[in-house]
Amino acid sequence: VKKSGKTDAILREADATGPDDMLFRVRVVLVRPSHPGNIGATARAMKTMGLASLWLVRPRMFPHPDAVARASGAVDVLDRVRVADSLESALESCGFAVATTSRRRELSHPLVTPRAAAQRLVAATGASDAALVFGNETTGLTNAELRICPLWTMISANPLYPSLNLAAAVQVLAYELRLAAFQEKVGKGTPAPASLADVERFFRDLESTLVEIGFLDPASPKRLMDRLRRLFARACLEREDLNVLRGILRSVRRS
Amino acid sequence: VKKSGKTDAILREADATGPDDMLFRVRVVLVRPSHPGNIGATARAMKTMGLASLWLVRPRMFPHPDAVARASGAVDVLDRVRVADSLESALESCGFAVATTSRRRELSHPLVTPRAAAQRLVAATGASDAALVFGNETTGLTNAELRICPLWTMISANPLYPSLNLAAAVQVLAYELRLAAFQEKVGKGTPAPASLADVERFFRDLESTLVEIGFLDPASPKRLMDRLRRLFARACLEREDLNVLRGILRSVRRS
Repeated sequence: VKKSGKTDAILREADATGPDDMLFRVRVVLVRPSHPGNIGATARAMKTMGLASLWLVRPRMFPHPDAVARASGAVDVLDRVRVADSLESALESCGFAVATTSRRRELSHPLVTPRAAAQRLVAATGASDAALVFGNETTGLTNAELRICPLWTMISANPLYPSLNLAAAVQVLAYELRLAAFQEKVGKGTPAPASLADVERFFRDLESTLVEIGFLDPASPKRLMDRLRRLFARACLEREDLNVLRGILRSVRRS
Repeated sequence: VKKSGKTDAILREADATGPDDMLFRVRVVLVRPSHPGNIGATARAMKTMGLASLWLVRPRMFPHPDAVARASGAVDVLDRVRVADSLESALESCGFAVATTSRRRELSHPLVTPRAAAQRLVAATGASDAALVFGNETTGLTNAELRICPLWTMISANPLYPSLNLAAAVQVLAYELRLAAFQEKVGKGTPAPASLADVERFFRDLESTLVEIGFLDPASPKRLMDRLRRLFARACLEREDLNVLRGILRSVRRS
């Protein structure tokens, strides 16, 4: 799946709205991160979800061996880190930015769920790059930095202890970004469901077999069959399931 | 919010379906974790989302200062950790368990999204505790451990690098649990799910009955039983369903 050079460019052009491409266009911006370990863990969280572009605004310590250690197999993301002097310059060429906050602010501003924020970010990548912005571990983003971002998001958390680790918050948002990018592409290759008619036939067979073996009273079959119908309806029978179940009924009748 | 003894029991009774209570009833089980830092980070991830009950199965090192350091403000979760000898004993009194896996397994088993898994877990807390199970950082869960859990979930990830940090995976699932708990319509009147032990007993009965009626070749029962397990796992068997199914098996064996 790794492609490069011309091929890459051609593929991007051809499928500019593919989920992987959308994710490449979302950059993560860490503003004034204190702990280099969190930078590494952020790189790892990003790469697991298909994000590649990490920007740092005035990191306290970077590069740093702790970042490398926590990045694990995502050192390539660290190698390509861009460091900026200000949030403004880290958002260069971005058409859209979402700020994360861990508490409600006095400033009134559109505050949406991570899910909604991810959908907006992914949608924005159709036009240009988009950014997801995280503040310092302790102090968060300043009001001035928040104001630069047209949309804010907050991860719903335990009010008694809402302190997600920085990289953990990145992981949650990156997870939502991946879901948003791949939305509705799920379910390819799911097994063929049984047809309704076949399922009905199975229920008739089941009923008569249960009468035959003396389990079901033919005078009042209703409640029992309703329960069994409910049970199998929840299971979303596949075609192959039905073949197995029919085979079992045949064996029971022969036994 | 910390309550104990009688008060706890009374509050649970009075508001057994409140979101906070649902989250208290979901335990996180780490099986053979290698790095104590991950145990601490897991405690933190859990507490931020309102989860409180952490079980460890044969941790390599615990207690450990790294665990305390990474737990940050969630040391209380560490203090209440339960350590068990086996996954079976860590699931004691749990009515439902979801296993996490980071790759598709050869074993066929119901594999659902984290979102669906979280909804199922939260719904299961109406009847008893429920468990979310994570394997070792490198080796994951064994096939035997996976089989104990009726449902599996996998976080959709970058196929080139699907290696989420253990605590990051816990954070994502805990986040989905919190969303599910606070969205879940008051699940009053949801029927009691069958216990894991009873479901296991049913599968054993089913297998021997299928052999008895000549449907199942005792020399190679594996694939068929896996399919049937999958089918019934999707159905989320209720206690009353199991009574009906057992009754059917008894009738079949008598017929």
